[in-house]
Amino acid sequence: MHATYPARIRLISLIALSIVVPAFCAILAGAQSGSDPLPAWNGGPAKQAILDFVRTTTDKSSPQFVPPDQRIAVFDNDGTLWIEQPAYTQVMFAMDRVPALVEKQPELKEREPYKSILARDHQAMAKFTVQDIEKVVAATHSGMTVEQFKELVSQWLAQAKHPRFKRPYTELIYQPMLEIMQHLRANGYKTYIVTGGGQDFVRAFAQKTYGVPPEQVIGSAAKVKYEYGKDGEPVLVKLPEVLLIDDKTGKPEAINLIIGKRPVAAFGNSTGDQQMLEYTGAGAPGSARLMMLVHHDDTQREFEYGADSKIGTFSEELMSEARQRGWTVISMKNDWKRIFAFESGQSQ
Amino acid sequence: MHATYPARIRLISLIALSIVVPAFCAILAGAQSGSDPLPAWNGGPAKQAILDFVRTTTDKSSPQFVPPDQRIAVFDNDGTLWIEQPAYTQVMFAMDRVPALVEKQPELKEREPYKSILARDHQAMAKFTVQDIEKVVAATHSGMTVEQFKELVSQWLAQAKHPRFKRPYTELIYQPMLEIMQHLRANGYKTYIVTGGGQDFVRAFAQKTYGVPPEQVIGSAAKVKYEYGKDGEPVLVKLPEVLLIDDKTGKPEAINLIIGKRPVAAFGNSTGDQQMLEYTGAGAPGSARLMMLVHHDDTQREFEYGADSKIGTFSEELMSEARQRGWTVISMKNDWKRIFAFESGQSQ
Repeated sequence: MHATYPARIRLISLIALSIVVPAFCAILAGAQSGSDPLPAWNGGPAKQAILDFVRTTTDKSSPQFVPPDQRIAVFDNDGTLWIEQPAYTQVMFAMDRVPALVEKQPELKEREPYKSILARDHQAMAKFTVQDIEKVVAATHSGMTVEQFKELVSQWLAQAKHPRFKRPYTELIYQPMLEIMQHLRANGYKTYIVTGGGQDFVRAFAQKTYGVPPEQVIGSAAKVKYEYGKDGEPVLVKLPEVLLIDDKTGKPEAINLIIGKRPVAAFGNSTGDQQMLEYTGAGAPGSARLMMLVHHDDTQREFEYGADSKIGTFSEELMSEARQRGWTVISMKNDWKRIFAFESGQSQ
Repeated sequence: MHATYPARIRLISLIALSIVVPAFCAILAGAQSGSDPLPAWNGGPAKQAILDFVRTTTDKSSPQFVPPDQRIAVFDNDGTLWIEQPAYTQVMFAMDRVPALVEKQPELKEREPYKSILARDHQAMAKFTVQDIEKVVAATHSGMTVEQFKELVSQWLAQAKHPRFKRPYTELIYQPMLEIMQHLRANGYKTYIVTGGGQDFVRAFAQKTYGVPPEQVIGSAAKVKYEYGKDGEPVLVKLPEVLLIDDKTGKPEAINLIIGKRPVAAFGNSTGDQQMLEYTGAGAPGSARLMMLVHHDDTQREFEYGADSKIGTFSEELMSEARQRGWTVISMKNDWKRIFAFESGQSQ
């Protein structure tokens, strides 16, 4: 009997290992899932609202459990996921495309608003109307295939820099919002971008920057035309005609068109997101919903703006609707430890 | 030393089991994956084309390997996934909605085409123009919320029966096509429906019938309007105005709008699918693509129709383009062992 001990010990060790190793792995995994999924956030009601929402909607024993196929979260882009001041990035892109446009259509050279843009007449440009800007966007975003357009956007984003931060625009995404997206996806949510900006523009960088694939980017869209190229190959050419304006009431309308399901979480920052948040909130009574508004109140680390801004308007009415409907307002100043990934990580 | 044998044997058995059990499971799994994923198909070039395409695009060592995020397959619905004769199912639905429409709008009672529909005047109905039918569809598909409409479709599908087969329309789906969808999905493909029919109509049954969720149903779409209901709740009301016609050139245009990626496999049955197949086929040279056309040539088990049909036109030009571009034509008569799930499974 005595002589069998070493073998027994080996046997017992093997059995013990087969129990201990998986248990140890489970503990490690537990420790990891117990780690903070939102490290760029300061503690507070906003952070807590996100953590609570994800926990309660993914816990099968919760009365507010949301089945995986209904886990749809929608995010506005400009001002919610990345910077939108002093101008929408896409407008910056459009302005930079004007020289190439004029080369193709020289008759535009002497016409406004192109003339002021070419002269870099900032005083005149500051007075541009929405129609002026729309005209420039339509002209610079058409007359090419969808693929060619995305290539132009990629090239531009690789070299353009934000006037204040002197960094590529794709580095000026909000780290705390990226963490929400990642935390939601890690819990079975499908994250969609629902932007007033151009769908093709955002699709050119959303996968790489946010981990959001093209089919989960909804945006304002121009009509395209199916044609045959010079070698007879089919191409989709962008036209200077609007198909969808994905802003205000256009947001829930486009969500219905493209997703066909009502989201359970929605994130915005302006009056353009009001209806998307209302629509998300109007699900079945008693069901879990998360509606959040990013408030730009940090003039030191980013920008401070509200009802006075042409971009990202955050009106008193919106604030009052948020209070009334139980939407969570995120204070960039107080709730965000870090705004951008390149920051030190210390709250200022 | 001798006394240690039993323990050794136990130890060796344990180790052996730890190797044998997974190996056995792998063999079982292998046997399962080796089973025919397309049992409703007769052997032949069409079946082989599908099996080859799936194998070559999912084998990492293949030069034609397609990364998972590019595995997009698109399917026409009427005549490709389910029956479309003697009339589109959605048109049947629209006709059946006319009494309810007239109840709400009695002034339509004496007007054509409603008068003939109410009188069940089949002679007059046979002479309806496309415009007549579009008028009835627009009127019966609007003036209600998106949710209410889907509920009406579900109720109708639960009781309506096909005039020849005396079965619910959702049983008149093609078993061989369902098998393609399932085989593709089992291999990491995302399957989309791209239908000339109404997007909301098809979304009402696509999940249950085909396993395709609403966000993967692309179809012709009416405009919707964001409004506040009588309790102040936001609702999306269907308007009698067209937003998208998802037919012919409209198919690749809508694929671009909603998916933003070029499919690698496309399935259709008529001239309405021509551009979708062309667009799919025009990917990078040398890359794997699968384009297939269902040919309705089985008058005994289903229907036989072609260039003479108003529905599902299969012209000589389309056949010639298929030959030229290497699209596979599926003969329902020869390639399909079973057409519907309720059949015996024997080829006739």
